[in-house]
Amino acid sequence: MSRADLVELAKRRGYFFQSAGAYGGVSGFYTYGPEGATLKQNVEDSWRDRFQVQEGHREIDAPTVMPEPVFEASGHLDTFDDMLVECPECGESHRADHLIEDNTDIEEAESFAPEKVMDLIEENDLRCPSCDAELAGVEVEDFNLMFETNIGPGDSSPGYLRPETAQGIFVEFPQLAEYARNQLPFGITQIGKAYRNEISPRKSIVRTREFTQAELEHFIDPTEDEPPIERVADVELKLYPADEQEKEGGDYVEMTVEQAVEEGVVNDWVAYYLGVGKEWYESIGVDMDRFRFRQHLSGELAHYAADCWDAESEVDGDWIEITGFAYRSDYDLSKHDDYSDDDFTIFKQYDEPKVVERATVDPDMSYLGPEFGGKAADIGEALETLAERDRAAFDGEDVTVEVDGEEYAIPVEKTGFSVDEVKESGEHVMPHVVEPSIGIDRVIYTVLDHAYAEDEVEGETRTRLSLEPSVAPTFVGVFPLMDKDGMGEQAREITATLREAGFDVTYDDSGNIGRRYRRQDEVGTPFCVTVDYDSLEEDTVTLRERDSTEQVRVPISEVPDMLADLQTGETTFENLDAPAPEQ
Amino acid sequence: MSRADLVELAKRRGYFFQSAGAYGGVSGFYTYGPEGATLKQNVEDSWRDRFQVQEGHREIDAPTVMPEPVFEASGHLDTFDDMLVECPECGESHRADHLIEDNTDIEEAESFAPEKVMDLIEENDLRCPSCDAELAGVEVEDFNLMFETNIGPGDSSPGYLRPETAQGIFVEFPQLAEYARNQLPFGITQIGKAYRNEISPRKSIVRTREFTQAELEHFIDPTEDEPPIERVADVELKLYPADEQEKEGGDYVEMTVEQAVEEGVVNDWVAYYLGVGKEWYESIGVDMDRFRFRQHLSGELAHYAADCWDAESEVDGDWIEITGFAYRSDYDLSKHDDYSDDDFTIFKQYDEPKVVERATVDPDMSYLGPEFGGKAADIGEALETLAERDRAAFDGEDVTVEVDGEEYAIPVEKTGFSVDEVKESGEHVMPHVVEPSIGIDRVIYTVLDHAYAEDEVEGETRTRLSLEPSVAPTFVGVFPLMDKDGMGEQAREITATLREAGFDVTYDDSGNIGRRYRRQDEVGTPFCVTVDYDSLEEDTVTLRERDSTEQVRVPISEVPDMLADLQTGETTFENLDAPAPEQ
Repeated sequence: MSRADLVELAKRRGYFFQSAGAYGGVSGFYTYGPEGATLKQNVEDSWRDRFQVQEGHREIDAPTVMPEPVFEASGHLDTFDDMLVECPECGESHRADHLIEDNTDIEEAESFAPEKVMDLIEENDLRCPSCDAELAGVEVEDFNLMFETNIGPGDSSPGYLRPETAQGIFVEFPQLAEYARNQLPFGITQIGKAYRNEISPRKSIVRTREFTQAELEHFIDPTEDEPPIERVADVELKLYPADEQEKEGGDYVEMTVEQAVEEGVVNDWVAYYLGVGKEWYESIGVDMDRFRFRQHLSGELAHYAADCWDAESEVDGDWIEITGFAYRSDYDLSKHDDYSDDDFTIFKQYDEPKVVERATVDPDMSYLGPEFGGKAADIGEALETLAERDRAAFDGEDVTVEVDGEEYAIPVEKTGFSVDEVKESGEHVMPHVVEPSIGIDRVIYTVLDHAYAEDEVEGETRTRLSLEPSVAPTFVGVFPLMDKDGMGEQAREITATLREAGFDVTYDDSGNIGRRYRRQDEVGTPFCVTVDYDSLEEDTVTLRERDSTEQVRVPISEVPDMLADLQTGETTFENLDAPAPEQ
Repeated sequence: MSRADLVELAKRRGYFFQSAGAYGGVSGFYTYGPEGATLKQNVEDSWRDRFQVQEGHREIDAPTVMPEPVFEASGHLDTFDDMLVECPECGESHRADHLIEDNTDIEEAESFAPEKVMDLIEENDLRCPSCDAELAGVEVEDFNLMFETNIGPGDSSPGYLRPETAQGIFVEFPQLAEYARNQLPFGITQIGKAYRNEISPRKSIVRTREFTQAELEHFIDPTEDEPPIERVADVELKLYPADEQEKEGGDYVEMTVEQAVEEGVVNDWVAYYLGVGKEWYESIGVDMDRFRFRQHLSGELAHYAADCWDAESEVDGDWIEITGFAYRSDYDLSKHDDYSDDDFTIFKQYDEPKVVERATVDPDMSYLGPEFGGKAADIGEALETLAERDRAAFDGEDVTVEVDGEEYAIPVEKTGFSVDEVKESGEHVMPHVVEPSIGIDRVIYTVLDHAYAEDEVEGETRTRLSLEPSVAPTFVGVFPLMDKDGMGEQAREITATLREAGFDVTYDDSGNIGRRYRRQDEVGTPFCVTVDYDSLEEDTVTLRERDSTEQVRVPISEVPDMLADLQTGETTFENLDAPAPEQ
C-alpha cells in the first residue's frame, strides 16, 4: 500500500491530518483526530506500563520551553543544525543534503561539511525543486533546528522549544537523585512534545516539526551496575551491525539477547533494552518481518552518543528509525555539571572509610606575587590542579605549569607541595546513561501501515486495519439492526454499559448493517455487537470479529466480560464458547 | 497550612519544583517530579473517563505551535493582553493591574483601561516592588501574552504557542464535523500544554507560563439540543451568582442542578456540566467545604464568552479558579468561518424538503457599469446581500446601498430584483459551544492542599497527604522488616507481582519501619505492605492504612485483589476481613 492510501484513510477515518487546513495547512504540523489521539494514548499507556511500571522506573513531566543555558550546556545551540540552501529566485528554503541524496547516488550527505555540499550541488547541476533555478554557487548555511522564543517581556531571556524530552530529565538530575536517595541505578521516563524546526518536513507524520517522544533515561554506575539480562535472555534479535553495513554483501545477524551480549555484538545495557523493545513492538502490532535493529555508523552518531542502535521499521519500501537505543555515557551530566552551579554526581559511600594519599600545594605567595604579578593567582591554581593529577611533576627542583599558553617554572620548595594521608568516606560518581528514545508518531505510522490490509468479503474488496485489540482506539461498535421496535434503545443501553466498563465504544445506527461493518473494519475496530429482533426476545446479541468476519451469538450479560478477556488476550475469538441463551 | 509548607513538601517528595534550578530557575516554569507526574497522569485519566468516555465524546491531539491566521481569527492576537509597566530604574517588568490590586483596596483592576491604571499608579504613589523607584508617569502598555516563534527558516511564517487548547479543536471543526457525519451534538476533548507569557508569574503552579489544560468543546444545535439533565438532576451545587456578588451582604445560593435550571439561575448546558464537574472534583479529593461555583461578572467575561461560571477552590485563604464552564455560543466557529476559506457550519437536512421564498437580484450591469465605474461590482454584491436580508428595501422606486462608506441609490428596475419559490433540502447551522475548561495544574495544587494534614501518631507530629486511593501516585509501599533472612527477597517478589497487576509500587528497605511509614504518609501512599518473620512462616503480611494507621494481617495471595478493591472503592479498609492464614 502506498503512503497516499494510508494518508487518505488516516484523514477520512479521523486518525491524523495536516493541521489548520482551513488556513491552507502548516507544513510539518499534524493533528491527531479522534481515532488517532486514542490510538496514540493507548500506545503511550502500553509503553508506560512496559518501560516504566514493570521496570520500577518513575516518570516526570517537565516544561517544553527551556532557557538558553540548558542548550549551551547540552550542545544543541552549537551543533543541532541542518544545512540550508535558499533559492535565489523563488526564495524557497531547501535542505541541502537532501537535495543531493534525492538527486544523486550519494547517501548520508548529512555527514558532509557545507563546503563539500556546495561543491556537489555545483558538480551535479542541482536545481531548485520549486522553480528549477540553478543552485550552483549559492551559499549552504548551518540552520539551527530549535524553535526560539522569548520568556517574559523583552528579549533578554531567550527560550527554546526542547529538541528532545531528555534534557528536561538531565537538567533536573540533582533533584531526581535526591528523590532516589542518591542510590544508583534509577530510571526516569518522560512522554511529551519535542520540536525540530525542519527546513523541509516530509513523509506525513514521519518527519514533522512537532512530535511526541517517550524517553527513558536509566542512570547507572558504570563500574558496578549490570542489567537483568535474564529477563530477556531468549528474545531473538534481528541485528544489522555497523561492520555488516560497511562490508560488501553484509547481512543481518540473528541471535538472542544473551548471545549478543556474550559475543560482544551489543553493549549489555543496550542489549537489555533491545530485548524489552522487541517484545513491546510485537505486542502493539509491529510486523516482525519488517523490523530490525541497525547500529549507527560512526559518522552517524549524535554528538552525545557513545554507541547507538536504532529500531527500524519498513514502511513505503523505506526503513525508518522508530526508536534510538543510545548509550549516552556521562556526556550530558558532565556537561551540566560543568556549565551549571549544581553537582551532577552521586556521592557513593564506601562500606568502610578508606585511607588514601592526597597531594596538595600551599604556594608561597610572597614569592609568587612579586615574581609573576597578575598571573600569580592563576599559577597557584594551576599548581593545585597539577598536584592532584600528576604528583611526579613535583619530583625535580622546578615544576612547570602553563597559564594562558605561557609556561612558568617554579621552584618546588616555593609550592608547599606535600602528600598526606586522609580518610575518605566515599567518592563522587558521574552516572552513565542508557536511553531508549521512542518516536511515538513514527511508531503510530508503522502500526497503521503494518495493520493496513485488503481482502475480499462477499465478493467485494474490503479495506481493514488489523490493529491489535490492546491498542485499537475504538474497541467495539454497537449497532441496532434498525433504530426501531426497541432495538435502538437496547443498543444504546449496551453502549452505556460498555462505556461504564471503560471500553471505547462507537454507537452507529445509520445505513445498512454491511456498510456499518465495513466502516468499522476501516477504523480497525476489533469487535462489533449487533442488536436484532432476536435480541429483544432472547437477550442475546451477535458478536463479530473484524479480521475473520465470523460471528457468534452470546448473552448480553456476558458481553462485558468476554470483551475484557479479548482485550487482554486472556481468550481468543475462536475459543469463545457461545452458550445457548438462557430462556 | 501555608503555601511555603506545601511547596517545600512538594519539592522534597518529588511532586513539583521550579524548573532548571541548576541554572538559577526560570520564573513561571515548573517540573512535575515522579510523584507529581503520576498524580497528574491519574487526574487526567480520571477526567478523560468522566468527561469523555462516559459521555461518548472523543479526543484529539493538536499541535501546540499554531500559525498566525488562527489567532487573528480567534481574537487572541488583538486582545489577549495584560498591562505592563517597566521600571525606568531597574528595568524590571510588572503587571500594572496587580500593582494596584496588591497595594490599594481596588479589586479587578484588570478591567480598567491603561490610562486609568496609569492615573491610579500616580494617585497612589505606587513604586517598583524590586527597587522602590517611582512609577508615576511611566507608560502602561498592552503586552500580548502569546509566546511567538518562527515556523521554518526566516521570519515569514510567525507561529504562536497556543494560549488555550480550544483553538486546536475549533480550527479543525470542518474535519471533525465530517468525522461526526455532520450530526449534532458531538463533543471533542483535548488534554495538553497551553502557554501564557505572564509578565510576573506567581503563586507556585497556580499561575505559570506553561500549563496543562483539559478542555471539552461540546458542539450543539442551539435550537434543538438539550442536555441530559436527569443524569445529574439531584447534584447539589453551591452557587455564587453575579447578582449576589454585586449586592451588599450577598451570599451563596444552594440548589440542585435541576432547580438551577428550572429557576433560570444557570443556563441548562452549563448547569449539566457543573453537575458532572461537582461529582468529579469530589471523587478526586477536592474538599467540598472549600469549593464553590462563581458566576463571572459582566466586566470579567473573556472576549468569547456569553456566560461563564468558574469552579473555585479555596487554597492559602484565597479563592482560585480551577475550571471555567463557558457558554462560548458561536463566537469561535463564526470567526473561523469568516477568516478562513472553509465552512464552519453543519448542513442540517430537513425531514422533508421545504418550499421557501427567496429574494434574488440580477443587476443590469449595462446600467451599473457606465454609471458607477469601478464601484459597479461592489454595488452588485451589496444589492445581493441586501436582497437576502431585507427584501422590503426593494419596495420603493430606488434602493440605497452603502459601499466603502458611500451611499448609492439605484433604481429598483435596474436591480433585477425578484422573489421566487425554491425547494430547500436543509439549512446551514452554526453550532454553539459549551466548554468546560479545566486547569489541571490548579486542580493538582488544590488536591494536594486539601489533602495536607497534620496529626499526632505515637506522640509525634506527623504530616500526611490524605490523597484519594483513586489518584494517589504511589498506591502501595512494600517493605521488608529488614533486608535479611529472605524477607528482602519476599518483599521484592511481592513488589514485582503488584507491578504486574498494574499498581504503582515503591519498594523501600532503608531505615527503621516507623520512618518508612512516615515517609509514605508524606508522599500520600494509601497502603503499605510489610514482610516480617511471620511472613516467611505463614505467607502473610501486614497491610496498613495511611490515615488510620490501622493494620491487618492478610494472606499474601489475597493482597492484589484486596488492593484492587480498595483502589476502585469496591471495599473500604474497615470492611476488610482478615481471614486466618491458610496453613
